[in-house]
Amino acid sequence: MNTRKGLAILGSTGSIGVNTLDVVASHPDRFTVVTLAAHGNVDLIEQQARRFHPRLVVLFDAQKASLLAQRLSDLDIEVDTGLDGLCRAATYDGIDLVMSAVVGAIGLQPTIRAVESGIDVAVANKEPLVMAGDLVMRPKTQNYGQILPVDSEHNAIFQALQGHERSALRRILLTGSGGPFREWSRDEMQEVRIEDALKHPNWKMGPKITIDSATMMNKGLEVIEAHRLFGVSLEQVQVVVHPQSIIHSMVEFHDGSVLAQLGIPDMRVPISHALGYPERLSNTLPSLDLFDIQTLQFYPPDLKRFPCLQLAFEAASAGRTMPAVLNAANEIAVQAFLDGDIRFLDIPAVIEATMAQHTPVELTDLSVALEADHWARDYAAVEVKEHRASKTVLYRGE
Amino acid sequence: MNTRKGLAILGSTGSIGVNTLDVVASHPDRFTVVTLAAHGNVDLIEQQARRFHPRLVVLFDAQKASLLAQRLSDLDIEVDTGLDGLCRAATYDGIDLVMSAVVGAIGLQPTIRAVESGIDVAVANKEPLVMAGDLVMRPKTQNYGQILPVDSEHNAIFQALQGHERSALRRILLTGSGGPFREWSRDEMQEVRIEDALKHPNWKMGPKITIDSATMMNKGLEVIEAHRLFGVSLEQVQVVVHPQSIIHSMVEFHDGSVLAQLGIPDMRVPISHALGYPERLSNTLPSLDLFDIQTLQFYPPDLKRFPCLQLAFEAASAGRTMPAVLNAANEIAVQAFLDGDIRFLDIPAVIEATMAQHTPVELTDLSVALEADHWARDYAAVEVKEHRASKTVLYRGE
Repeated sequence: MNTRKGLAILGSTGSIGVNTLDVVASHPDRFTVVTLAAHGNVDLIEQQARRFHPRLVVLFDAQKASLLAQRLSDLDIEVDTGLDGLCRAATYDGIDLVMSAVVGAIGLQPTIRAVESGIDVAVANKEPLVMAGDLVMRPKTQNYGQILPVDSEHNAIFQALQGHERSALRRILLTGSGGPFREWSRDEMQEVRIEDALKHPNWKMGPKITIDSATMMNKGLEVIEAHRLFGVSLEQVQVVVHPQSIIHSMVEFHDGSVLAQLGIPDMRVPISHALGYPERLSNTLPSLDLFDIQTLQFYPPDLKRFPCLQLAFEAASAGRTMPAVLNAANEIAVQAFLDGDIRFLDIPAVIEATMAQHTPVELTDLSVALEADHWARDYAAVEVKEHRASKTVLYRGE
Repeated sequence: MNTRKGLAILGSTGSIGVNTLDVVASHPDRFTVVTLAAHGNVDLIEQQARRFHPRLVVLFDAQKASLLAQRLSDLDIEVDTGLDGLCRAATYDGIDLVMSAVVGAIGLQPTIRAVESGIDVAVANKEPLVMAGDLVMRPKTQNYGQILPVDSEHNAIFQALQGHERSALRRILLTGSGGPFREWSRDEMQEVRIEDALKHPNWKMGPKITIDSATMMNKGLEVIEAHRLFGVSLEQVQVVVHPQSIIHSMVEFHDGSVLAQLGIPDMRVPISHALGYPERLSNTLPSLDLFDIQTLQFYPPDLKRFPCLQLAFEAASAGRTMPAVLNAANEIAVQAFLDGDIRFLDIPAVIEATMAQHTPVELTDLSVALEADHWARDYAAVEVKEHRASKTVLYRGE
């Protein structure tokens, strides 16, 4: 086992990307970084390139990519841009594993290309599985790459299932902290400020996923992801609110045994599991200290106060292009909330209105998912404008 | 997989034995009961024999065995007695798996005989591993049978390790309820009555193991068992007091991941795991309801209030024959407490005095362990007499 795994890290400047490079740096004998890709953070990706010596670096933003190319002109590193660049980064020669951690729908095509090229993909962004799970998880009769989940919940489920009969699986117990508004009333949630929503109780993450945790849409997307990844029905996925975020998820077998994966809330644990799989890399992170934590709690989710979770179940149940529409409308709504254009409870309203206008169609190929995604973004943007108008009116009236 | 597993059930009339037959009865297509053995409960073993049609039934007590032979004379079932009978029951023709669930040291020889004959043994009694773990867990270079742990804690550890690299194991987190006196002060424990000690908060078990739970000697014996079964150092075994008995134990890997097995406190879950292994039998027991339980708690053990746990660590650390002496002295002391001869806190005193008089010797073979066991029983009986005398004096003085 002394050959190094060749890695593509898509989204290298984000939270998962930075943590991935941190794990890689502590195992220099195990990994080679072959490609890096990000949206537009020139400074950080330049530093990363100088440190990890990839062969190709991609910035999605073309202008930023030009700037990067100038900055890296002293090194023998190719620079590329756009979706084609991302797809090249995912399938470049010498890559054994892709860490797919770009935010949003843009990760879909590179993931599918890599899997189709027989390259394993550690999936840290939910969108590929939510938007086009059937395409990503195609029957493994051909030389398809394996999907390794990095999300702490799905990684926990993967670990708990490892070595056990899949046919004995009865239920998945998908845990979630419940976010910062777990105990807020619906009325209180009317008044949520952006800074309230950006305070996640346990995990440090980017702003989009932090807002998704506050609305519990993150858990909804994870329900869809679990349904796709592990081939279980929606009825077999039970969301469990667990404020301490110590149990990262559980599986129940048909003999009543439940296996859970626990750990400190540090993404380097699931990242290193996915990078090392099937071997376990050691690390020097502090051990889980249950005597310090002392109490773990569990509550059923409240779908009334967290309508995004309900919408996710409905989208998953409708299937076909509906999860892609849910996901796209959510991205637009969350961005509008972060921009101060709509209020917190407008997020589910925008998504619900968009879903209501959509008739789901069969996902015959990737273009169908992308078309639904584009349509939903446009429609949600119109809805955002209407909510923005009503928000202004309300504020005037206050 | 339509050949039925042939079973020997040693201790068929005890709590584990009865639950084992309950699991067997719900899977008539999977198992055949080849032999049954128990101490002396003629009525129950007769019923079991009439229901499950074994080829051999053994009662350790010779007089009871004669009575049983008369009662079963209408059937073509052989009846035997004594230790030889137990060993025959464990190695009878057609046995694929022995359920070893007799109370105390008597299970040692049948277990070793079965393992040496290449028969898998589901070990529900701790004594074989505590008294002579090195002999039971001999290097598996020969055609030795596999040991499948049935104790809920060790079964949990076995399940959590299944499918994972053993070399990545960092720690075992061995959970225990803490028993009925978890929150009692040392002074309050002076006054423990037999009926207090027989009330276990979560598990229904026989009287010996229930008292062992109250003193936490049960957890101490389990530390030794885990140390033997999983080949870990004593420093790698952390006892975790977990009053709800829902997490049955955990393992921590060197990447910081912790895997736990959870379930309702029903011995039929680990029993069916061991019987079915490597397949999982389905059952109709209620699912674990975490919303009903809501809270799981974890505390460090208090070795001062529970000196039996401290003594077990010391015995394990001394090694060789010392664990056998600990176990034997504990059996005598617990029986004396159940007989009303000594008080609750005399139990650790009797064990400590017995251990102090013993110089451990190398466990070259089974006879060495049995000799230490016999010596310790005799010595502990003398100690019991002294404590009984002082108890009487104390009572007179009250």
